[in-house]
Amino acid sequence: MAQIIDGKLVSKKILENLSDEILFLEKKPSLTVIIVGEDPASKIYVNLKKKKAQELGIHSNVIEMPESVSQKELLDKIEELNNDDSVNAVLVQLPLPKHIDTKAVIEKINPIKDVDCFHPYNMGQIATNGKPYVYPCTPKGIIRLLEYYDIPIEGKNAVVIGRSNIVGRPVAQMLLNQNATVTICHSKTKNLDAIVKNADIIISAVGQKNLIKADMVKDGAVVIDVGMNRADDGKLCGDVDFYNVEKKAAFITPVPGGVGPMTICSLMQNTFDLYKIQNGS
Amino acid sequence: MAQIIDGKLVSKKILENLSDEILFLEKKPSLTVIIVGEDPASKIYVNLKKKKAQELGIHSNVIEMPESVSQKELLDKIEELNNDDSVNAVLVQLPLPKHIDTKAVIEKINPIKDVDCFHPYNMGQIATNGKPYVYPCTPKGIIRLLEYYDIPIEGKNAVVIGRSNIVGRPVAQMLLNQNATVTICHSKTKNLDAIVKNADIIISAVGQKNLIKADMVKDGAVVIDVGMNRADDGKLCGDVDFYNVEKKAAFITPVPGGVGPMTICSLMQNTFDLYKIQNGS
Repeated sequence: MAQIIDGKLVSKKILENLSDEILFLEKKPSLTVIIVGEDPASKIYVNLKKKKAQELGIHSNVIEMPESVSQKELLDKIEELNNDDSVNAVLVQLPLPKHIDTKAVIEKINPIKDVDCFHPYNMGQIATNGKPYVYPCTPKGIIRLLEYYDIPIEGKNAVVIGRSNIVGRPVAQMLLNQNATVTICHSKTKNLDAIVKNADIIISAVGQKNLIKADMVKDGAVVIDVGMNRADDGKLCGDVDFYNVEKKAAFITPVPGGVGPMTICSLMQNTFDLYKIQNGS
Repeated sequence: MAQIIDGKLVSKKILENLSDEILFLEKKPSLTVIIVGEDPASKIYVNLKKKKAQELGIHSNVIEMPESVSQKELLDKIEELNNDDSVNAVLVQLPLPKHIDTKAVIEKINPIKDVDCFHPYNMGQIATNGKPYVYPCTPKGIIRLLEYYDIPIEGKNAVVIGRSNIVGRPVAQMLLNQNATVTICHSKTKNLDAIVKNADIIISAVGQKNLIKADMVKDGAVVIDVGMNRADDGKLCGDVDFYNVEKKAAFITPVPGGVGPMTICSLMQNTFDLYKIQNGS
């Protein structure tokens, strides 16, 4: 029976500490989120971010732009925020409408305010074991969970399934930077089962339910499920066949309640970290 | 018996084509190399680069700075080159003296002139499967060799041993971007033998002779040796026990004459690519 990695608990503790630190600040950290269009899921996420920021005493501002906004207007708005000293952290909620060049938008954000850590400069720092201003939220959350439960990383075989820029690629780099032997798998990988069977640490960030089955998991493995899917009964589930994998793993994250809460927690930490960097500490 | 991957041949062909293209240009591409101090190996490499550039019709300028140069002077010189429209490509020969912050120097080079592709911005582009201005020289050379010999990458198990910013990390990313399943190993990896034994493509960039032995290599594997070591008899050798591994591999790079010639070839290609970008093509 695996020990459950409780992301709700860990994020709660981190945010309580963060709240205490922010309480004593005269000038509060400030996060601005740009949302383009009316995508319902995006609206939910943005509201969540705004609400969490407010709970912690972080100033949050949401700028709503219509679906039809031009790329130039969006880039100009980001430039304005780059130059606004009262704004510490900027993010643009993805996805963006198809007429917008997402990479150009990501690159417009000044890396020192890039709270999502999507800018190639910050990603390049991670890829070279350097010093990004902050770390990408979900990978940062994953590493924090491993640390909280004293799960060793050095020398371990870590298998990351999924190579998105948001999760798979950066978490692989961050595990490598902590001396794991890292394998990155994806849709073109052959023999996924055999590769995962050798893993000490499995990070699945694919978005496919029941991808990770018990016969793919070695006894005592650590299983981190980043997937967010709908099960047949409509409930939220991850990539992992939790019920069966739990019997073999040493540690496992549930969905929901595992990695998910850590992502927004990291966003708040990142906002505070950027505030501190910009205010000279 | 493995087919020998002949880096001398491949680089010769590439450079012949490059020379022809440059011949017809009125304004020639221009590369500036900064060398600090008197390190003999660095001097040899810089002279090689200068000579190769001249053979191809590329303007090359070598700026020699004393070992005692201050970081400020070095950064100011780079800034000067950044602003000099007659200079397309800039590199600073490494290693630098200990009093210099190498990362700060690397980051000072404008990414659009970063011919070595060390700048975090360019590394971040590679790490996110984006568009760096150019690719790092040795990894680019390795990929070029695989392509020249029609060696498939997609779906293959590629094991990279070594995680330097110059070779291991970027070549791993570039193989991933071409849909290999990539494993990155290093000094803290356990069970290296077993991991390498599963590899379809082995890239060894460690600097340790006889690291890769025949019993670690599966029949038909592709073996790319980036190592540069001295054998007991004083001759140059790689990381691979060539004599024995050659009997099992399908393809193998010799040392010297494999990856080495491709590195400087890539540098020349990169210089031309930056020239073209800066001149609007």
